[in-house]
Amino acid sequence: MGTHSPSGYDRAAVRSVLDRARSEGRDALTAPEGKALADAYGIPVPGEALARSADEAVSLAVELGLPVVAKIVSPDILHKTDAGGVEVGLASPQEVKAAYHRIVDNARAYNPEAQIDGVQLQQMVGGGQEVLIGATTDPTFGKIVVFGLGGVLVEVLKDVTFRLAPVTPEEALSQVGDIKAAEVLSGVRGGEAVDREQIADIITRLSDLVTDFPEIAEADLNPVFASASGSIAADLRFVLDFDPAEPPRRFSRDEILSAMDRIFKPRSIAIIGASNEAGKIGNSVIKNIVDGGYAGAVYPVNPKSDEVYGYTSYTSIADVPGDVDVAVFAIPAKFVAGALEEAGRKGVAGAILIPSGFAETGETELQEEVLAVARRHDVRLLGPNIYGYYYTPQRLSATFCTPYDVAGGTALTSQSGGIGMAILGYSRSTRTGVSAIVGVGNKADIDEDDLLTFFGQDENTNAIAMHLEDLKDGRAFVEAAREVVPKKPVVVLKAGRTSAGARAAGSHTGALAGDDKVYDDILRQAGVVRAPGLNELLEFGRALPVLPAPTGENVVIITGAGGSGVLLSDAVVDNGMSLYEIPPDLDEAFRAFIPPFGAAGNPVDITGGEPPSTYEKTIRLGLEDPRVHALILGYWHTIVTPPMVFAELVADVVAQARKAGINKPVVASLSGDTEVEAASAHLFEHGVVAYPYTTEKPVQVLGAKYRWARAAGLL
Amino acid sequence: MGTHSPSGYDRAAVRSVLDRARSEGRDALTAPEGKALADAYGIPVPGEALARSADEAVSLAVELGLPVVAKIVSPDILHKTDAGGVEVGLASPQEVKAAYHRIVDNARAYNPEAQIDGVQLQQMVGGGQEVLIGATTDPTFGKIVVFGLGGVLVEVLKDVTFRLAPVTPEEALSQVGDIKAAEVLSGVRGGEAVDREQIADIITRLSDLVTDFPEIAEADLNPVFASASGSIAADLRFVLDFDPAEPPRRFSRDEILSAMDRIFKPRSIAIIGASNEAGKIGNSVIKNIVDGGYAGAVYPVNPKSDEVYGYTSYTSIADVPGDVDVAVFAIPAKFVAGALEEAGRKGVAGAILIPSGFAETGETELQEEVLAVARRHDVRLLGPNIYGYYYTPQRLSATFCTPYDVAGGTALTSQSGGIGMAILGYSRSTRTGVSAIVGVGNKADIDEDDLLTFFGQDENTNAIAMHLEDLKDGRAFVEAAREVVPKKPVVVLKAGRTSAGARAAGSHTGALAGDDKVYDDILRQAGVVRAPGLNELLEFGRALPVLPAPTGENVVIITGAGGSGVLLSDAVVDNGMSLYEIPPDLDEAFRAFIPPFGAAGNPVDITGGEPPSTYEKTIRLGLEDPRVHALILGYWHTIVTPPMVFAELVADVVAQARKAGINKPVVASLSGDTEVEAASAHLFEHGVVAYPYTTEKPVQVLGAKYRWARAAGLL
Repeated sequence: MGTHSPSGYDRAAVRSVLDRARSEGRDALTAPEGKALADAYGIPVPGEALARSADEAVSLAVELGLPVVAKIVSPDILHKTDAGGVEVGLASPQEVKAAYHRIVDNARAYNPEAQIDGVQLQQMVGGGQEVLIGATTDPTFGKIVVFGLGGVLVEVLKDVTFRLAPVTPEEALSQVGDIKAAEVLSGVRGGEAVDREQIADIITRLSDLVTDFPEIAEADLNPVFASASGSIAADLRFVLDFDPAEPPRRFSRDEILSAMDRIFKPRSIAIIGASNEAGKIGNSVIKNIVDGGYAGAVYPVNPKSDEVYGYTSYTSIADVPGDVDVAVFAIPAKFVAGALEEAGRKGVAGAILIPSGFAETGETELQEEVLAVARRHDVRLLGPNIYGYYYTPQRLSATFCTPYDVAGGTALTSQSGGIGMAILGYSRSTRTGVSAIVGVGNKADIDEDDLLTFFGQDENTNAIAMHLEDLKDGRAFVEAAREVVPKKPVVVLKAGRTSAGARAAGSHTGALAGDDKVYDDILRQAGVVRAPGLNELLEFGRALPVLPAPTGENVVIITGAGGSGVLLSDAVVDNGMSLYEIPPDLDEAFRAFIPPFGAAGNPVDITGGEPPSTYEKTIRLGLEDPRVHALILGYWHTIVTPPMVFAELVADVVAQARKAGINKPVVASLSGDTEVEAASAHLFEHGVVAYPYTTEKPVQVLGAKYRWARAAGLL
Repeated sequence: MGTHSPSGYDRAAVRSVLDRARSEGRDALTAPEGKALADAYGIPVPGEALARSADEAVSLAVELGLPVVAKIVSPDILHKTDAGGVEVGLASPQEVKAAYHRIVDNARAYNPEAQIDGVQLQQMVGGGQEVLIGATTDPTFGKIVVFGLGGVLVEVLKDVTFRLAPVTPEEALSQVGDIKAAEVLSGVRGGEAVDREQIADIITRLSDLVTDFPEIAEADLNPVFASASGSIAADLRFVLDFDPAEPPRRFSRDEILSAMDRIFKPRSIAIIGASNEAGKIGNSVIKNIVDGGYAGAVYPVNPKSDEVYGYTSYTSIADVPGDVDVAVFAIPAKFVAGALEEAGRKGVAGAILIPSGFAETGETELQEEVLAVARRHDVRLLGPNIYGYYYTPQRLSATFCTPYDVAGGTALTSQSGGIGMAILGYSRSTRTGVSAIVGVGNKADIDEDDLLTFFGQDENTNAIAMHLEDLKDGRAFVEAAREVVPKKPVVVLKAGRTSAGARAAGSHTGALAGDDKVYDDILRQAGVVRAPGLNELLEFGRALPVLPAPTGENVVIITGAGGSGVLLSDAVVDNGMSLYEIPPDLDEAFRAFIPPFGAAGNPVDITGGEPPSTYEKTIRLGLEDPRVHALILGYWHTIVTPPMVFAELVADVVAQARKAGINKPVVASLSGDTEVEAASAHLFEHGVVAYPYTTEKPVQVLGAKYRWARAAGLL
């Protein structure tokens, strides 16, 4: 029985239907078989019964409830309608009786040889709202359920929602309400509201069914007629796959953590292919490890040198005197398998495979060979085809790029080396406090879910930002994310959102990018904050750890520039927040501080020519009033309140509030001459996420923090 | 007759219906009156006729075409259905005859006193696709027409499109195709495609009707049943307004230009309230004008000083010896009207009203008084409540901010002072080449359409970027924009997009922001490129003049980082472009330059470790092949091709191409360590729009250039 299923599923009935289909080599179910599955899992379908005489037809029809549909049942008549074997809308006993005779007569006339088993009567459904409920097997996420409104909304506007199966009843209900046209379900144009819980119940039951029987590759309940009194699936279709793809190798949390701890906090590192020759990757790697300040043991491995960068060099990792936690590979692809064999025997926990020339250039066999060696020795692989990795708490820069030393709470990962370089440059330029930067490249082994599992429990990390083009095991990722999100934000940039992008992703990693809507819905279901683009990934990664989590939805804008107030208001709506309707007493309190022609309400428009004290008093009021949960500040450069004066006063007021135990997120948009750049930087350093020349970005960051806080269950 | 109307409108018939309604003090039309309007303008409606006997009913019904609807006609029966006075679906003469008798009998039973005029027969329509066609009077744009699909799509998803009336048949057709669910009109679920031209024809006729008769405030044709063979408006509703708002004062193009020429290129400027006292606005203004390098005559006006900032000061502008083109006001609001009276007598062309304290603080009367003075003397007002204005070709900085001296082609305007300061700071920080920065503030007089008219013909301006919260005269703006767009891009940031933003706009300027979808559709119809936010306004303003216009839709990505290629591909789709399907011969030519495991196709993935020559050869090929119209470059920082080496080689290759007459837009995304910032700046200075750490922004700018080029008719 599915985790969240109501009791009473008749699994034996389903088993027997599926076994028969399997034994007969079929990959689809007949209509009665489909009905049997629905019945077994309590999915309501129209009642039906087989009548063998006109009188029996009448009594069965009354029992099922009129009106009914009548259909000839004969193994020899495939096209029932052509044979005059179908009549609909039979609303009275008389009509049923007459129809029975006509159908049988028609069938006899159509094919005198036909064996006639009787007439099937089916309760006629319709009316209410047509909806579609389905389940399919996604290559990334496995079993997923889909919901949408029938007809144009699904077919033209693709207004559907996905969830990972099995769903809880709450998830199913959120899925139903998540379609764009959800208002239709509440009744429009005089229509009655439908019972959403009944729809959710069918979704839950179907999700349990496909979870319990993975050989059900696809299921379509379409249409389902939903109304105020219930929902009924009028048509069912099931597709089977008795030979599904093998699930990816899973590691337990303990297995992951014990390997990751040694990889991120190694006591010793061997550099396979360390070199004295400038310009060589093996030279850059050892220099960066040493110059970056790594305090553990460093063992260059290079048969051609006695010493590399001042360290004794070894012919083979086997010769290294002590234990080795991590081996960084800086040798050509073709030598990796051999060297990894030795590293495995030496007992390394992780092999960092910098070299390219594996699956990304078509050398998939070589990559599989290397992976097989790793599995044999219980070595976890990072890469291949990566720049390496950073972990600042250990001052570890195991990469051919340059060391990074601004320690902080953000862990960043990238599937692509180019994006990794952008992460590095951007972080350096903005002085983003980073715990880790990790390239995952071809993901022959270590994947985002391994990293999530580690960073989720890593006390040095308080936000995780990931660039990815695909997920090797979407379900494992979701499980890891669900574990982490209540503790810290997880931001994901999923490249290949569009079909053009997905095509480009295909040519890059050979990865199959799923439909973006599936990713979008399921990542959201897992509580992940999705970044729309690279710049937002970097910005969210930088800014989210700076902001405290909001404890409620009441957002207030305080602005010196009315024009910024308008744009900030637009941005609040764009980013899924809403402006707090300030109650009269608080409004009056704000008004006491601002000129008579300033506008209280929300935005609080303090007007442009005000001295620092006006900013200070209104911001303090916003921070101290417990009904306000987040502040957005709009600053307008004037002679009376120059940028740095504003920045320092805001930093002070916020610091005082935090000392008093008031931790509210504060973001700021600074409009002015170039001095606003330094002022923004000052604010950022003091816990206020601030940007010059943009009203959108600070609000977008606050919106991301809210999305996370909601997913984490904090609101 | 409307400009684009088919001939044969019966305007006299409409006139007489409207005159009667007016004389009777009605603001709505009856159904027969509505039908008369439709008939006069050739809008197809169901046939109808009044029968006074059962036999007449039968012959009329056969004439109209069966089936028909029959309705009682009586001035004493308002609720026809309650009276049993409506029957539908009468499909045979017998049914019509019986229905006639039943209806009359029911009516008599319902109200024995009722005067019965007969039974109205109406052709019964239905089937096909329900659509909505309407017209309304928008406070900003005047007459507009609306189109949408009937039912849920309009009511729940608000899937409607707007156009300014009158529309051309081409515009109406584009309006029909512009709804999100347009595919429905092409036939889905086995439905037939509807005749879009017939729908467009009705839109055109309705738009002519409301244009010819402005007292028709609203018109609803809903539903219109559209099918493959035609469209028919089943229900009509007209609302009249015989007392419409007065249209805003319009100036002719010549009037605008002769004033604007003197305002932007003044031979002499008076500063009313010029002061020697540091910190005063009148001090900042004269200093900025003088220090900014303005070469014309400068006349301080201040009764308390003999000399201001080294210039002879006058007690009144009347005392100034020569002519004065522009008077800048730096005095309190209450003194403006008096001083403006003198300036008017002196014959100034423009008064720059820096002071606040007018409509924005509730002093609307004071503002109207000042406007009246200006009108009396033919003085155009800029402001009030502004920072002033800049025009770099004249080295003119008539503002209390600081001088700006990076001359270039972008003219920027802002309704809000705070946004103006952001424009200044951003432009200075990015060294944006600017022709003008203008604050319009309360827009008591000079409006965006005046400025568009001037900048449109200004040889020093080649792109216009405007921040606005409302348009005082949307129609004049659209007319000005249509004139300018074929010559240079017009970018608009419309603040108050969302209802929260619009509310904030209301509290800021008292301006009524119309529904954003109306702005969106009509600005697009006018060829305006809309910026989604402040940062994009600034970025588009900065970058659009740098890029040559594309001459075709074939966009090619060349990238060293596969990961960037995926994100750039996503961005291409997001920004309304599509990747060129590279033909085999060109594909082969690209492949000749890249490693075997690199991916040709589009993106052209040259792979990460390549030397400068690979970038150079592929980029040159893309530039030289005439089938390619625009290039997007993805750079990945490596030791082999460092950032500045890349930047210089791209700048060189592009310069060579331009010398050879090849002018294609080239944009670049640079991923790498902080050196990519200087490399991006170098590229920007050499005509390649380049950004570090973002794959979205360069593509967004290219997309904006494409949107403009399409609107300008270049593609």
